[in-house]
Amino acid sequence: MNRDSFAAGERLVSPAYVRQGCEARRSHEHLIRLLLEKGKCPEDGWDESTLELFLHELAIMDSNNFLGNCGVGEREGRVASALVARRHYRFIHGIGRSGDISAVQPKAAGSSLLNKITNSLVLDIIKLAGVPAVTSCFVVPMATGMSLTLCFLTLRHKRPKAKYIIWPRIDQKSCFKSMITAGFDPVVIENVLEGDELRTDLKAVEAKVQELGPDNILCVHSTTSCFAPRVPDRLEELAVICANSGIPHIVNNAYGVQSSKCMHLIQQGARVGRIDAFVQSLDKNFMVPVGGAIIAGFNDSFIQEISKMYPGRASASPSLDVLITLLSLGSNGYKKLLKERKEMFSYLSSQLKKLSESYNERLLHTPHNPISLAMTLKTRGEHQDKAITQLGSMLFTRQVSGARVVPLGSVQTVSGHTFRGFMSHANNYPCAYLNAASAIGMKTQDVDLFIKRLDKCLKTVRKEQNKESNVSGVDNYDKTEDVDIEEMALKLDNVLFDTYQNSS
Amino acid sequence: MNRDSFAAGERLVSPAYVRQGCEARRSHEHLIRLLLEKGKCPEDGWDESTLELFLHELAIMDSNNFLGNCGVGEREGRVASALVARRHYRFIHGIGRSGDISAVQPKAAGSSLLNKITNSLVLDIIKLAGVPAVTSCFVVPMATGMSLTLCFLTLRHKRPKAKYIIWPRIDQKSCFKSMITAGFDPVVIENVLEGDELRTDLKAVEAKVQELGPDNILCVHSTTSCFAPRVPDRLEELAVICANSGIPHIVNNAYGVQSSKCMHLIQQGARVGRIDAFVQSLDKNFMVPVGGAIIAGFNDSFIQEISKMYPGRASASPSLDVLITLLSLGSNGYKKLLKERKEMFSYLSSQLKKLSESYNERLLHTPHNPISLAMTLKTRGEHQDKAITQLGSMLFTRQVSGARVVPLGSVQTVSGHTFRGFMSHANNYPCAYLNAASAIGMKTQDVDLFIKRLDKCLKTVRKEQNKESNVSGVDNYDKTEDVDIEEMALKLDNVLFDTYQNSS
Amino acid sequence: MNRDSFAAGERLVSPAYVRQGCEARRSHEHLIRLLLEKGKCPEDGWDESTLELFLHELAIMDSNNFLGNCGVGEREGRVASALVARRHYRFIHGIGRSGDISAVQPKAAGSSLLNKITNSLVLDIIKLAGVPAVTSCFVVPMATGMSLTLCFLTLRHKRPKAKYIIWPRIDQKSCFKSMITAGFDPVVIENVLEGDELRTDLKAVEAKVQELGPDNILCVHSTTSCFAPRVPDRLEELAVICANSGIPHIVNNAYGVQSSKCMHLIQQGARVGRIDAFVQSLDKNFMVPVGGAIIAGFNDSFIQEISKMYPGRASASPSLDVLITLLSLGSNGYKKLLKERKEMFSYLSSQLKKLSESYNERLLHTPHNPISLAMTLKTRGEHQDKAITQLGSMLFTRQVSGARVVPLGSVQTVSGHTFRGFMSHANNYPCAYLNAASAIGMKTQDVDLFIKRLDKCLKTVRKEQNKESNVSGVDNYDKTEDVDIEEMALKLDNVLFDTYQNSS
Amino acid sequence: MNRDSFAAGERLVSPAYVRQGCEARRSHEHLIRLLLEKGKCPEDGWDESTLELFLHELAIMDSNNFLGNCGVGEREGRVASALVARRHYRFIHGIGRSGDISAVQPKAAGSSLLNKITNSLVLDIIKLAGVPAVTSCFVVPMATGMSLTLCFLTLRHKRPKAKYIIWPRIDQKSCFKSMITAGFDPVVIENVLEGDELRTDLKAVEAKVQELGPDNILCVHSTTSCFAPRVPDRLEELAVICANSGIPHIVNNAYGVQSSKCMHLIQQGARVGRIDAFVQSLDKNFMVPVGGAIIAGFNDSFIQEISKMYPGRASASPSLDVLITLLSLGSNGYKKLLKERKEMFSYLSSQLKKLSESYNERLLHTPHNPISLAMTLKTRGEHQDKAITQLGSMLFTRQVSGARVVPLGSVQTVSGHTFRGFMSHANNYPCAYLNAASAIGMKTQDVDLFIKRLDKCLKTVRKEQNKESNVSGVDNYDKTEDVDIEEMALKLDNVLFDTYQNSS
Repeated sequence: MNRDSFAAGERLVSPAYVRQGCEARRSHEHLIRLLLEKGKCPEDGWDESTLELFLHELAIMDSNNFLGNCGVGEREGRVASALVARRHYRFIHGIGRSGDISAVQPKAAGSSLLNKITNSLVLDIIKLAGVPAVTSCFVVPMATGMSLTLCFLTLRHKRPKAKYIIWPRIDQKSCFKSMITAGFDPVVIENVLEGDELRTDLKAVEAKVQELGPDNILCVHSTTSCFAPRVPDRLEELAVICANSGIPHIVNNAYGVQSSKCMHLIQQGARVGRIDAFVQSLDKNFMVPVGGAIIAGFNDSFIQEISKMYPGRASASPSLDVLITLLSLGSNGYKKLLKERKEMFSYLSSQLKKLSESYNERLLHTPHNPISLAMTLKTRGEHQDKAITQLGSMLFTRQVSGARVVPLGSVQTVSGHTFRGFMSHANNYPCAYLNAASAIGMKTQDVDLFIKRLDKCLKTVRKEQNKESNVSGVDNYDKTEDVDIEEMALKLDNVLFDTYQNSS
Repeated sequence: MNRDSFAAGERLVSPAYVRQGCEARRSHEHLIRLLLEKGKCPEDGWDESTLELFLHELAIMDSNNFLGNCGVGEREGRVASALVARRHYRFIHGIGRSGDISAVQPKAAGSSLLNKITNSLVLDIIKLAGVPAVTSCFVVPMATGMSLTLCFLTLRHKRPKAKYIIWPRIDQKSCFKSMITAGFDPVVIENVLEGDELRTDLKAVEAKVQELGPDNILCVHSTTSCFAPRVPDRLEELAVICANSGIPHIVNNAYGVQSSKCMHLIQQGARVGRIDAFVQSLDKNFMVPVGGAIIAGFNDSFIQEISKMYPGRASASPSLDVLITLLSLGSNGYKKLLKERKEMFSYLSSQLKKLSESYNERLLHTPHNPISLAMTLKTRGEHQDKAITQLGSMLFTRQVSGARVVPLGSVQTVSGHTFRGFMSHANNYPCAYLNAASAIGMKTQDVDLFIKRLDKCLKTVRKEQNKESNVSGVDNYDKTEDVDIEEMALKLDNVLFDTYQNSS
Repeated sequence: MNRDSFAAGERLVSPAYVRQGCEARRSHEHLIRLLLEKGKCPEDGWDESTLELFLHELAIMDSNNFLGNCGVGEREGRVASALVARRHYRFIHGIGRSGDISAVQPKAAGSSLLNKITNSLVLDIIKLAGVPAVTSCFVVPMATGMSLTLCFLTLRHKRPKAKYIIWPRIDQKSCFKSMITAGFDPVVIENVLEGDELRTDLKAVEAKVQELGPDNILCVHSTTSCFAPRVPDRLEELAVICANSGIPHIVNNAYGVQSSKCMHLIQQGARVGRIDAFVQSLDKNFMVPVGGAIIAGFNDSFIQEISKMYPGRASASPSLDVLITLLSLGSNGYKKLLKERKEMFSYLSSQLKKLSESYNERLLHTPHNPISLAMTLKTRGEHQDKAITQLGSMLFTRQVSGARVVPLGSVQTVSGHTFRGFMSHANNYPCAYLNAASAIGMKTQDVDLFIKRLDKCLKTVRKEQNKESNVSGVDNYDKTEDVDIEEMALKLDNVLFDTYQNSS
Repeated sequence: MNRDSFAAGERLVSPAYVRQGCEARRSHEHLIRLLLEKGKCPEDGWDESTLELFLHELAIMDSNNFLGNCGVGEREGRVASALVARRHYRFIHGIGRSGDISAVQPKAAGSSLLNKITNSLVLDIIKLAGVPAVTSCFVVPMATGMSLTLCFLTLRHKRPKAKYIIWPRIDQKSCFKSMITAGFDPVVIENVLEGDELRTDLKAVEAKVQELGPDNILCVHSTTSCFAPRVPDRLEELAVICANSGIPHIVNNAYGVQSSKCMHLIQQGARVGRIDAFVQSLDKNFMVPVGGAIIAGFNDSFIQEISKMYPGRASASPSLDVLITLLSLGSNGYKKLLKERKEMFSYLSSQLKKLSESYNERLLHTPHNPISLAMTLKTRGEHQDKAITQLGSMLFTRQVSGARVVPLGSVQTVSGHTFRGFMSHANNYPCAYLNAASAIGMKTQDVDLFIKRLDKCLKTVRKEQNKESNVSGVDNYDKTEDVDIEEMALKLDNVLFDTYQNSS
């Protein structure tokens, strides 16, 4: 409403009240102005009415929402379904232009602003989360793997001779495929065992660099966040090797924004050596739906080159999600989530330790992994694999999601490369184990239910394994509480066991 | 967004595009300004983005949406559920103040504006629909019956001696109860049969006025929209009687706004005689959810008196619904609906005539009723009622809603008053019949399905009634098409027959 | 989705996963079944997905959502605007039938269920809140005042001779108007001053009953929740007088559900004497938008009589709001809100006491009022009223809502009756004062901001009143924090002062 | 609601009505079952209540919506913002697994079903739109350009020696960049002029194949939909060349689904020769927001290879949009849109012809282009470019979006390759021109406004160009109607002219 509308309003109801309402409106506008001027995440989260006002204001700046628009092009932001238009707040034109995903669209000033602001907010949060040296980033509506691919494809143009990517092993398919898809040969560097931890074999990396020759190497592709007992790569040392050899360095920081340790590694790596870009998932770090990633770095022009590599426009949906989320939370809200995650990690760690000991198992000692934990699964005799797979299946049917059992000796071939000990990041890890992680948004209730159900499952598995022996376990499982889940699970166990065995 | 925000936006993306967006925003603002200044329904409907922008702007003028508000009263517009807040567009304070449902709320300038504008728009539409002489109206979040009660309660204070309400009979419970609830004695004036039509017995009204004495009569309570074969009351003549005797006149115009004939009667009645207020349903005339009515009249101060009678605040929900609806439709959209309704009435009429004749029945000749039609249901022997009730039940299970079968000789006692021939508006209407109406929003498909299913039901009923005779009916019923409904209906027939028999 | 759909789903994706999803669905269904079978508020609130599934399931049971429906009546639940349909979750038919607001609608099984369940849940909550003896209640889409009117209108039919309503004075317009609108003469019983409190004058009530004669008295109309220094009426004693004299007793419990004390008074009154119905606001007790009330009582048939008095259908909107709210909160969530309110009352009380003493004012001692507090406003000389009104206006412009200043000697005529000392519930209360209340949903931040701003305003007013004296006040006001509100307020002060003076 | 819930419901309201509601529910379930069983787009569109019920049912099969779920992984579908969760209907897990974007997710049976069904529906629509021979397709949440890149990257693994892509020139940046990003050298085949049309130079293609050698060629990359005067490539002949030389053939069918001609070319190409995959935009063909594409083909295993190339999960948002859209429209609704588009093309064509002739211009004769039209822009002397650019800018400020002016002799370098005559698909097209297209969803009003505004702009430009001559133009421009847009545009003209000049 503009001045004339308010004046008309004053004639309908009391001027004093309208004026008070009009003044109140300014508080919302003030927040919006600050956001646009500073480009920073507000400290306190916005309430829904400010947020929706803002999105509404942006949307009506897009040509598809112009009241007098007539479209004679092939892409006019027309929407067939009102449901679809509404769920996108009427942002239809996506982000970017054919030449550059970060470019401004003449037809869509609102969407373009949305894109710029989102990238600016995300940059602010990355700084706050532990990488103050970051200078540039952008949200891309692709998963982490495909975003890594985009980075590699960009590097190709700068290093036409390069064929190889040096990659300290991490057993996650999409990391590996990101290199294959880009058309490069991953050079797998096996990890070394230090105590229970699997860590980067720096010497092997250096040897490989010598052996292949820097010019033939596209980049080093390292990883921060990962499942224990693997721990984040030694980024500082890798960054130094890269700097010294003139090799680019791309870091897969998939769910590392939530951990100050992972972020600190990146900050330090960039300070003492070379990191060209680091890529992180939107969903895993910002609690939004799957589908977006952030490509960030310390050199504006390189990050821009990547953004110019994306041919064509792209979905604004992930950007919109993260924008809504960050404005709702505010930086204080996000910091609170980070703090709670850390606390939950300690809690999960202590509970899992207690439980494992009651079963004569052990929580692996992996102090360098700030997110994931692993507990040994001792197995006897020939049926070991079956028992372990059964445990995984049982947890799944009991609605424990995300727990991962890792048997010994699993072999898998991914895009032609054979991995021994697949899932364990090593050819011969000494024992089978079970992973659990404390990720952002986890609640005490998640931990408690997990421990309770795991206890129950372990008890069942042990009984089957060893009918004569009497294993007791933590005896705090209250049968009455969780009875529905248990009942349901029993029905599903057999069906799902088969499935799980094949798919894991 | 204010000027500063746009300026900041211009620094983020191209100034030219932001400026274009900013100009485009003005088109929305322009519509809003016009609405507030003129208080009239826009000719062309608004699109959703203008509508939601407007509602959003109003809502943030309410104190519960002030960012800095602190509430220390007993009614602060707090909402526990975000779903609830959102579905009300964050209008929480309702409309009106303790003293007057039309009064402005200091705490809620936005809701107050919403209320004023809605009433203004509705007034505009009533004029357009055929009562240009109307001067004042307001939306009240109560059904038609309770709104009539409020009118009667208001009149009580002006006519302390009055005990009676003169009421040309219409067999609809809530009309009758509206008078009982207000504490008055309805004096029922039986209708006279003219051809097939049941019309106002003006002589009986005049005689009653003489007999009881004008001062003892609170008002005449007449009706426009009604089920055939009753037709709208002779409003002009009643209005003249009222004017001459100094008796107030309240018109129940429940679903009459949709008919230019009903509206014309009111306009004429007010011109030549006396009409104090006319009351109409929101849902039946404006295709909104049940729960609101409009009280309108020709004398501002009387209408205000009624609005001041409502003790306490009231729900803004019906006002919001009708506001959204009218702004979406525009006056052109509403006129189009009126036109289509009229056409659909002709279509229904001709189809029903054709069908009735094929069954040796007859469409009653009720030219004064512009909305409802009636078709005779001949019955033979003692089982007549059962057959008719069964027909009603069959239609219901076949998802024909709103068709009403009216048997002969039904007797019902409502609040102590016994009505013979209940549902037929007369003690002894000559025949049983079935009603169907063409109300606003009806589609060709409604008529076609109705005729098809009615044909089918009549055929079945006839077969049962007279096994030897072979009645053919309109043979255009395509069994394959409507087969799902039929199948479902057969399963329900018995169950529902019992229910229907008891409830109708 | 039914069995066949799940089977088809299993062919598309893995049977095991579909089956797990299908089992998970049962948890939602289980909650819904429990609700329908027990009719009680679940202990733990439902999450949005269960809630929306439930509403969706109910809605498709209404005929307007039947896929094969054809409508030929005058009220078919058609909706012109998709926005409107959606915000009502496609419940269009409202609640009740022409004869009875609690009746089941054949066309709308879903809405009917919604209505029944809501009333059942609300009954459960009233018991839990402190009136276990309640046997019947229903939600009515009218404010408290109009709902009281409906009770009085119902009683009229049982007590045709009665003209008077005995009413211990409470200065709230809609209470008074509820009787006037119903057509009765309120007999105002002035309160007696006990300490600082204004309490029911039982002797005056008894005397009045004798004087007028029980048969001429429609009922006693008492009040629980009210502004200090008035306190809840002596319900037990009034209930005994009513029982002994055979006079009905209607209790205005407007915002009393949130206070165990108010509820206890009702429970006790009904136990030892007579309470026919008690009426409470939906919005003030359940944090939903304005517009609904609950009429409750201890005698099913009387409560049903009231529900049958409402002529016509009614809006389902308030029922839907309270249903969503209670299912979201669960009884535990509601109890938590009650507990927090009580704590906030203590906090507000102590903070206000501290502040008042720093200004040589006094928190009135009103231990029987569990919700509202009052702090004296000493005034000197002729300008007293102006200063007090100015304080009210200043608080308003500083976005303090709900604080009420009560000057001495205000006289107001409401519907012909003149109240001396209006707003103070007494002809001559000894001092002017300011009210603040701790209502459900209040937050610490509300109290803190209120105290801060009140301090600031008092300081300003005192300075103006007495230029030479130096009043210091609580010196914890941090100017930097609240600076925006203050700046804005200064601009509005003059404009609003005039308005406030006229409207209060 | 399950059987028990309905039984409980029957006890609350009449069993008959509940049963009717329960039966009505089956109609919705029936539609859902049919969809899951057949996997085809329903003929008639679903109404919103069926659609939302379906989405709701799917969503509760995902583990993040399990009521008893506990998550201990790093990706648990947690959502921080309720707004975000709601806008995605609580589908959070995206689609695909790390290995394959079409794979089923154990944690998300509902999302997996959504993905499968969407792909199945889209396949059905592609068949219906003119490529009945298609056998496989999938929706990918990337724009057309990036999707083409993915196809090229997949081919790389099958043709390790290949370095070149044969590409008949089309001046659209993202087409060109899709090859560059994939790391290949585009071999540009200039078009030949036939009449006004620019068509594929088949001989040049054949010569290039010979010259480079088939093994060194990754694929032929041809285009259907394009701006006139270029017309769709000669797909049949290209497909034959590819088949004969054993070269893969990827077709960019960006907005070709909407044209039966484009689709027919693909069908024929695949029948007589070789087409490995054809890629189309979701937004341009299905009126959904920007961000998705469909990769389709005639060989299941190749299409699966592409889907396995995408590393990691992906956004479900584009799939959800197209699912909602297709279910809302039904195949009949989509066919209707296709038919209307064709009619609108004729209308636009005739109107543009008329207008162009009135200015002594000419509509280029491009019968092979079914979507885009071009009208000559004669220019005189040195200021030609300026005048043409000014025309583009003027149209933009008058809210004509999508009209494209193409001056002569524009030179642009994209990723190192220099294009002469850029935007015109040819080094030396004989004249400057203006493009307009009839795309799906275009309305008569779009055409009329466009012609009106273009007329106005041409008039203005001509006046400036030639002050003495009097050009009249089509004189049907009603100044009063479009006055707001014009007024606004005048203000913006200068600002935007500069921008437009630099950006186009």
